[in-house]
Amino acid sequence: MTLKYNFYDDYSEGAHPQILEALMHTNLQQQIGYGMDEYSTEASNLIKEKIENKNIGVHFVSGGTQANLVVLGSMLKPYESVIAASSAHINVHEAGAIEATGHKIHAVEVLDGKLLPEQIKKIVNQHTDEHMVRPRVVFISHSTEVGTIYTKKELENLSQYCKTNGLYLYLDGARMASALASTNTDLTLADIARFADAFYIGGTKNGALLGEAIVLVNPNLQNNFRYHTKQRGALLAKGRSVGVQFRELFKGDLFFDLARHANDMASKLTQGLQAQGYTFLTESFTNQIFPILPNAVIKRLQESYGFYIWSKSDDKKSVVRLVTSWATPEPTVESFLSDIKKLSVI
Amino acid sequence: MTLKYNFYDDYSEGAHPQILEALMHTNLQQQIGYGMDEYSTEASNLIKEKIENKNIGVHFVSGGTQANLVVLGSMLKPYESVIAASSAHINVHEAGAIEATGHKIHAVEVLDGKLLPEQIKKIVNQHTDEHMVRPRVVFISHSTEVGTIYTKKELENLSQYCKTNGLYLYLDGARMASALASTNTDLTLADIARFADAFYIGGTKNGALLGEAIVLVNPNLQNNFRYHTKQRGALLAKGRSVGVQFRELFKGDLFFDLARHANDMASKLTQGLQAQGYTFLTESFTNQIFPILPNAVIKRLQESYGFYIWSKSDDKKSVVRLVTSWATPEPTVESFLSDIKKLSVI
Amino acid sequence: MTLKYNFYDDYSEGAHPQILEALMHTNLQQQIGYGMDEYSTEASNLIKEKIENKNIGVHFVSGGTQANLVVLGSMLKPYESVIAASSAHINVHEAGAIEATGHKIHAVEVLDGKLLPEQIKKIVNQHTDEHMVRPRVVFISHSTEVGTIYTKKELENLSQYCKTNGLYLYLDGARMASALASTNTDLTLADIARFADAFYIGGTKNGALLGEAIVLVNPNLQNNFRYHTKQRGALLAKGRSVGVQFRELFKGDLFFDLARHANDMASKLTQGLQAQGYTFLTESFTNQIFPILPNAVIKRLQESYGFYIWSKSDDKKSVVRLVTSWATPEPTVESFLSDIKKLSVI
Amino acid sequence: MTLKYNFYDDYSEGAHPQILEALMHTNLQQQIGYGMDEYSTEASNLIKEKIENKNIGVHFVSGGTQANLVVLGSMLKPYESVIAASSAHINVHEAGAIEATGHKIHAVEVLDGKLLPEQIKKIVNQHTDEHMVRPRVVFISHSTEVGTIYTKKELENLSQYCKTNGLYLYLDGARMASALASTNTDLTLADIARFADAFYIGGTKNGALLGEAIVLVNPNLQNNFRYHTKQRGALLAKGRSVGVQFRELFKGDLFFDLARHANDMASKLTQGLQAQGYTFLTESFTNQIFPILPNAVIKRLQESYGFYIWSKSDDKKSVVRLVTSWATPEPTVESFLSDIKKLSVI
Repeated sequence: MTLKYNFYDDYSEGAHPQILEALMHTNLQQQIGYGMDEYSTEASNLIKEKIENKNIGVHFVSGGTQANLVVLGSMLKPYESVIAASSAHINVHEAGAIEATGHKIHAVEVLDGKLLPEQIKKIVNQHTDEHMVRPRVVFISHSTEVGTIYTKKELENLSQYCKTNGLYLYLDGARMASALASTNTDLTLADIARFADAFYIGGTKNGALLGEAIVLVNPNLQNNFRYHTKQRGALLAKGRSVGVQFRELFKGDLFFDLARHANDMASKLTQGLQAQGYTFLTESFTNQIFPILPNAVIKRLQESYGFYIWSKSDDKKSVVRLVTSWATPEPTVESFLSDIKKLSVI
Repeated sequence: MTLKYNFYDDYSEGAHPQILEALMHTNLQQQIGYGMDEYSTEASNLIKEKIENKNIGVHFVSGGTQANLVVLGSMLKPYESVIAASSAHINVHEAGAIEATGHKIHAVEVLDGKLLPEQIKKIVNQHTDEHMVRPRVVFISHSTEVGTIYTKKELENLSQYCKTNGLYLYLDGARMASALASTNTDLTLADIARFADAFYIGGTKNGALLGEAIVLVNPNLQNNFRYHTKQRGALLAKGRSVGVQFRELFKGDLFFDLARHANDMASKLTQGLQAQGYTFLTESFTNQIFPILPNAVIKRLQESYGFYIWSKSDDKKSVVRLVTSWATPEPTVESFLSDIKKLSVI
Repeated sequence: MTLKYNFYDDYSEGAHPQILEALMHTNLQQQIGYGMDEYSTEASNLIKEKIENKNIGVHFVSGGTQANLVVLGSMLKPYESVIAASSAHINVHEAGAIEATGHKIHAVEVLDGKLLPEQIKKIVNQHTDEHMVRPRVVFISHSTEVGTIYTKKELENLSQYCKTNGLYLYLDGARMASALASTNTDLTLADIARFADAFYIGGTKNGALLGEAIVLVNPNLQNNFRYHTKQRGALLAKGRSVGVQFRELFKGDLFFDLARHANDMASKLTQGLQAQGYTFLTESFTNQIFPILPNAVIKRLQESYGFYIWSKSDDKKSVVRLVTSWATPEPTVESFLSDIKKLSVI
Repeated sequence: MTLKYNFYDDYSEGAHPQILEALMHTNLQQQIGYGMDEYSTEASNLIKEKIENKNIGVHFVSGGTQANLVVLGSMLKPYESVIAASSAHINVHEAGAIEATGHKIHAVEVLDGKLLPEQIKKIVNQHTDEHMVRPRVVFISHSTEVGTIYTKKELENLSQYCKTNGLYLYLDGARMASALASTNTDLTLADIARFADAFYIGGTKNGALLGEAIVLVNPNLQNNFRYHTKQRGALLAKGRSVGVQFRELFKGDLFFDLARHANDMASKLTQGLQAQGYTFLTESFTNQIFPILPNAVIKRLQESYGFYIWSKSDDKKSVVRLVTSWATPEPTVESFLSDIKKLSVI
């Protein structure tokens, strides 16, 4: 690889240095295993403070697909199902992990990655008796897989619909940091905890070495949850390894600062590309953007930069995905914009 | 916790400093996700060299229960089952993880944690038609859950029986390092790879921050294995985090050196306790020992040291488990022996 | 229920009298259990003759959902999936039975219940790596859930596509009898066995007391299939009960005769309704028809006849489903047509 | 087969003639599908009367393995397990059906097929935290797989232990009829319903063509149970086929009369064999007996009679299993006794 930089994703680098330092400083302190260590407890308490709710359950696991399959598996009776957007990670990019726990996913075709109460209602109304599965969980991602975010009103509406109709609302927060740090959001972490029954806070894609924090808000979901994590292979012997990282992310504002940097870099890319006349698939205020570029430009760009082609736009153009991270250097963004300008001229 | 030290397990400390340094040095290098990074490739190559077999598949995951459920799930058709010792981790301490993938475990009652071909044969012979499951995998642990190890001859016999009878032999190597570094073993890592169809090399319990290396020797097991890891939530986005650690463990002798230290500390404990007249549940040459202590001594010891009571021995004595690690300080071992001596005198 | 007759489905009556007589005549003959009885063997041989293939496997089970979940479960590795029409029984009306065996269903939105190679291809092409499931089986129903049937050419094309692309083709034949007895078909049972890797022949909906015959054509699917049936609770101790019935259905033309009668009654309904000016949702040549009736007419009709409202057509009209069976009396069809005529006049 | 008679099992013949007649008499009456027919309702009401409890749920399915997997699957959370005798049908002869629904079975080694509270307690006490599964259901068979039966006091003790310890008690009644009709029992069907949370009443092995009646006593288990039956392929479209049979079995005393005949024939065999000096593996008062015969006698007997060799007794003798049914003719029993007498003389 002789690329100048890759914008493939937000997990191409390791961890923020402050996190590695915390791992070093605590390294030789003996701790109880399986998440009963002091760091995990402290991290859990810090999250409870940020969420303004002492009665939540916090559980640290190593990855997002794991978080999703453990939580959804714990929420559902054998005949119950999940409603999700067609673009949802669980529907497309988890190799059937949810079905492997025995549950159907109802995929709603959407373009912007977001679900609406009326879409959910339609599915709920179609499932009326024991010949069919019974929808029980609404799965949303925030930010979504296409970089969009929910507004406070939208999330409140979803939450209201779910509560009224006996559904759990679960939020995949793999890129929640970017959503919360967006310049365009009116949602806080505490809001999310008021609206969702459960969610996870992504660390892997926001500067941790690895790890996610599952948050169980609804008391019905908290009982015996450790059995579920253990059974799915998600209970880490050295739970401390993830606990330390989340303590570091949440003891100050590091979690939000890292996301803000990623968003700023994405925003700079967006503005630079707009200035060059390019348009976008979705309007994103997070760290994933989807510009539409001429295929000839894409081909040349790929000699110096890594990124994924998302979809075909027309015969001559494609949508590409650019993802920035806490580690994306500003000069690299500038050189990318300058390089693409040169290519476009030609 | 105001304990002087705990001998609860070998994952009470973080990672060996050399491993943390490796994480730091590679931190800002961009890498492809999901185990396709250069460090994982290099670690994989180093393991292939140690094993003297270029045709194995190596996959890094975050924990042992996860490794077991992914590998066994990939080996078995729906109606096939696993034979294991009654003390096997999968049978007792994985919260039903294997059954949750749909498969029965046949537990053979054993005292020393080890399986023999005749025990396997008995189960195989009982399962003759489609009203019963079909045994397909023999699961062994090395070292076992009670600190014992297989000899080369024993493992060869098991392997021979399995090959002749159409069974896969799978070895749980959570504590393989301690077994391989034992002063009492005639087995090498390369031997294990000749005898087993698949196994995992434990990192979590031998100085890694977290992580295990699954090794697939039998070519039949290698095809599409990444689908299985992904579906079970075991494919880490930042696979590099584990890859770097195993590269460090295997680029020299660190993997073995760490285990040797743990074994030496256990051996020192054994000899010290024997000198004081204590006996043991099993004869262990690994980092887990099971001395039999008077209940009164145990009670006082627990004020200063952490360890688990394993089982009742008689009305006045119990078996305790002492586990040493790469990080156990020699002076701590000495002070433990000195403290117990004082207690025993009283 | 004081209805004159119900057209709810084709399983409202018991079994054809000839089948009950066969049960009586064989009743006291002792037979080996679990499908190893002589009647099941004879029924299997008769089916092999009709199919012109001695190398198939035939297995009798008690119901269609059971047949589907046993066969699909036996075909798929954990990470593999099924492609089906959105209206497919497995996708809508089996309470998540397939997902409960761990597998994803890709639902293709179709109006006529039939799949085309290009629809399958689109899904196959989207699933390219281990982050996604791997489509492995194409599931079709013949006749479909909306009464339509495949032509020989259409089935051949599907089969060709599947063979070329490493997919199994599985056909749900709950109402295969009606399809094969249709005046509008060019397909024979032997054709189906040439094109599909596996299918089941429905007895429950064509005059049996209960029971379906699973036919495994592809040799790869035949090995150890009885383990799968046993494990899913589908291996009947008194397998003879179903075997006798299929022997009776296939020793002459009873299977086809019963379906022909059902089709004739449906056809008579269709022609009578067309003569009264009514139109239909689909063009059906099987025993399920979907006329569009004014809501006022439907309301009055329901006082005397049972049938399901399928969907809304416009504000004043709805689609209803009328199903005929081997037992539907011709005079009842005539009186239904006469009754609706009177209602329409008003 | 040119055997005079086989004592393989109690499902070698078809159905009692009265049951076939009931199927004939109701045959052309149209009924609603999926167990909502009048016959199933009437059968359910008759069972409620016999059980003296109007608040139970009754569900008819086609076989015993199916009944077990549906009920146990509905009772258990993913991490919960079942305790059963080592000889239990679910542990040995269901091809891993329970594990296939994701749950571990703890097998207690017993010789007489019966469980005691202290055996259960031992297992419960060993399972203390989330690293282990959580035992939740106690599974017993009555009569057991080796022909023994529980006394009222024994069942009451089990029930008491389960209630006190938060366990469900589930009873497999495949051969419940024989147990209830035993000359040696003090248990009634109503007693069983007072002691067990759920059970099934076996029809297949007591004169039905096929079918079992699941009885859910504990109200917690009744909600949405039809979803579970549907998802496992156990909800029969023509539920009437089983409903009619159970109506016939329970509208008078047919259910008990058939079992009484089977028991009488077994008893006659027992007395005849005892008179000839033979001993038995277990003391059975049901329709399964286990005499110990010389291997030479067995070999000759097998030329005229079918039966299974159960186990080796010593070098010259084996235990065989003889099963009688509602249909076993008394003259056949007499000729068997006479034939074995001749063989023994030689």
